Amino acid sequence: MRDQRVTLITLGVDDLARSTGFYAALGWEPAQETEGAAFYRLDGMALSLFGRAALAADQGRPGAALGTGAMTLAQNFADRAAVDAAFARAEAAGAEVLKRPEAVFWGGYSGYWADPDGHVWEMAHNPFWPLDVDGRLALP
Amino acid sequence: MRDQRVTLITLGVDDLARSTGFYAALGWEPAQETEGAAFYRLDGMALSLFGRAALAADQGRPGAALGTGAMTLAQNFADRAAVDAAFARAEAAGAEVLKRPEAVFWGGYSGYWADPDGHVWEMAHNPFWPLDVDGRLALP
Repeated sequence: MRDQRVTLITLGVDDLARSTGFYAALGWEPAQETEGAAFYRLDGMALSLFGRAALAADQGRPGAALGTGAMTLAQNFADRAAVDAAFARAEAAGAEVLKRPEAVFWGGYSGYWADPDGHVWEMAHNPFWPLDVDGRLALP
Repeated sequence: MRDQRVTLITLGVDDLARSTGFYAALGWEPAQETEGAAFYRLDGMALSLFGRAALAADQGRPGAALGTGAMTLAQNFADRAAVDAAFARAEAAGAEVLKRPEAVFWGGYSGYWADPDGHVWEMAHNPFWPLDVDGRLALP
């Protein structure tokens, strides 16, 4: 089994219904929903939404104030137009715009938005990182 | 191209050398290193380490205090012994122990640790979520 892997990303959220509504507006469909969590299928892994206080307790530190923003999840796209389209879709879903897509110093094109709990997503095109037809990335 | 995907996870870090040293102690090998970032190959995606202040600036909010902890990255394993071994390896690498692996209410086995910047990892066995030989997860 490979050591370098991530099988589940969990986002702590303050209002599960608000968050599932936001991701539904992005076009995401949960594979499983329970009273306190929602699970989305990714490629070879999953993403879940889980109450922020419940996550703190699950981590063994009930009552801790968990922060956001220092971990970014990114979607890379095949071209700039696809970045713009994805960004517009997020904005229409109610995302907080942090930085609109723009050409960046490393030769790519990138913008950032935050979900209702402050979790940050980057929408990017990196001409040096080719994607396969399913949008999977293999670092050169 | 699939909409539900993550191609890059970026962890904001305070000291890149300290962080690359920590992940090296876990057995992770970077595919690319630059003066300000390190990139690791995952399956169909990548993980990067990037300066926390530089990340805030890149997100369009220079000077922002970015928090951690409300987003968890998890590795699932085939059995409890593998969870224990991975957890011990992280502790030996200098991880902060948040919760040692224990049987949990949903029928699995899970522990949490934090990396030098407070990014939280869960080491888990979920008997209801089978993994393939490479450790990839497909939600039932």
